[in-house]
Amino acid sequence: MSLSSRVSIVEVGPRDGLQNEKVTLSPRVRAELINRLGAAGLTRIEAGSFVSPTAVPQMAHTDETLALVLKKDLRLAVLVPNLRGLSDALSAGAKEIAVFAAASETFSKRNINCSIEESLERYAKVVAEARRHDVLARGYVSCVLGCPYEGVVDGVAVASVASALLEMGCFEVSLGDTIGVGAPLQARRLVERVARVAPLDRIAVHFHDTYGQALANIFACLEVGVEVVDSSVAGLGGCPFAPGAAGNVATEDVVYMLQRMDIETGVSLERLLAAGTFACAQLDHAPASRVAQAYGAKCNQPADRW
Amino acid sequence: MSLSSRVSIVEVGPRDGLQNEKVTLSPRVRAELINRLGAAGLTRIEAGSFVSPTAVPQMAHTDETLALVLKKDLRLAVLVPNLRGLSDALSAGAKEIAVFAAASETFSKRNINCSIEESLERYAKVVAEARRHDVLARGYVSCVLGCPYEGVVDGVAVASVASALLEMGCFEVSLGDTIGVGAPLQARRLVERVARVAPLDRIAVHFHDTYGQALANIFACLEVGVEVVDSSVAGLGGCPFAPGAAGNVATEDVVYMLQRMDIETGVSLERLLAAGTFACAQLDHAPASRVAQAYGAKCNQPADRW
Repeated sequence: MSLSSRVSIVEVGPRDGLQNEKVTLSPRVRAELINRLGAAGLTRIEAGSFVSPTAVPQMAHTDETLALVLKKDLRLAVLVPNLRGLSDALSAGAKEIAVFAAASETFSKRNINCSIEESLERYAKVVAEARRHDVLARGYVSCVLGCPYEGVVDGVAVASVASALLEMGCFEVSLGDTIGVGAPLQARRLVERVARVAPLDRIAVHFHDTYGQALANIFACLEVGVEVVDSSVAGLGGCPFAPGAAGNVATEDVVYMLQRMDIETGVSLERLLAAGTFACAQLDHAPASRVAQAYGAKCNQPADRW
Repeated sequence: MSLSSRVSIVEVGPRDGLQNEKVTLSPRVRAELINRLGAAGLTRIEAGSFVSPTAVPQMAHTDETLALVLKKDLRLAVLVPNLRGLSDALSAGAKEIAVFAAASETFSKRNINCSIEESLERYAKVVAEARRHDVLARGYVSCVLGCPYEGVVDGVAVASVASALLEMGCFEVSLGDTIGVGAPLQARRLVERVARVAPLDRIAVHFHDTYGQALANIFACLEVGVEVVDSSVAGLGGCPFAPGAAGNVATEDVVYMLQRMDIETGVSLERLLAAGTFACAQLDHAPASRVAQAYGAKCNQPADRW
């Protein structure tokens, strides 16, 4: 099994991360974070969402954030829940959107208030309209390795939702272990299952580190050819169901692993660590990234000998 | 690649963990921890060491700890640095010892105050004497994927030390990434390199989670047939070079990963979590285990649906 020599990281901290933080950052600070992430070499960044600011105040005024991003060649994606959100995203000049489906009926109903089928019908319209404006659409499938309400989730259900998202025009599906319960063999089997209905280069993986499994899961998926990995600077976001527990896998930890394995990411770990430090200072908590903690504690210095 | 259906865990918390903790626990409390770990189903436990109590006060009176362990069929190992330590270990009734060599000259000199060759000469006498008393000897090789002083460590050097330890009569060598800098491909390549000079079933792996790589490394090594994994309940020990940073990989996280992959360990995760809670209460800090943190924060409950 040989791993790809290059992996693309989709940085989700400014959206998936920040929307689960207690502290709401201003659009200006969010743009500053994105600018720093871009300066670190990240090229695909989830920048915000056009959802109800009542429901998700952390993402209010995403249009202002987008306008303040300096590097114009970044691929900034914004989450949109419906046609109204898409319309707002288009007005803000978004060139890439993301839609968020689930592989678990109960999670779908509790999280986005409709069945999986209803969500897919709605997203089909959103994606078609986005494509009509030459806007790329990414599809998320959440709860791919487990659901907080239903327990085990069937890989067939995941493949079905992933397939539907690609068929409606999404360029990529991101398979999300939203609650972080999966282990490497499950993660890999799931990718292999979805790869039966979708080209491997259109499958991204999105792991949470709730139970510490994220990097092992990523490695197992890289081994079967996955080349796109979602992660969140400083592990921003935490566990949405339990304050204090780990959430999104930290970009620093992913980049560290990839760099050590001579897999190209285009990311400067040093600048990335600085961006994470900036974000955590704004949010007033320590980074969940082990790498950031180790560098912060000056483990094994000097690090430049590695 | 198919993973073994059973993995043995060597619990190192009561020695490698506790000796790096600021708080010194009494022999009675250390025995209580071992008793709880034994009740959780762990059968191989590093129970202490017979080194100078001035140098390592946390391990003083290991003989008392051994005497207070209830379950008599546990495989308790004790670290011994020399013939005098062995003599003390034999007097205390130890049935298994461990000797600690390094793959880096500078680390060897700074840590145990002699060259690698000198350490191997000394250990050869210790192991021969132990074997004469029907006492099993385990060999550690530290700094196998990097040294805080020398940087990158050559796999050939690791294989050479591992081979010497086995030849002098050790039944197993444990390859330790003492400072946690290795990534999965390096870890796996190292195991493959050492497996050229040693049977795979005599190679154990010992990872630190300083940079979050431990579980991924373990998974990568399981894939090439490793069946013995060292870990420390609650991640006891921290990073010896940097207070506050992660150290030994947490047994809970390893057991969680293995259980989810249907690999038998014989360990009850619930009882193990309780043992970790007991240890952390004594040490007055939170567990470094992500699994313990998630269960503590009641992530994704009810967990019994998984």
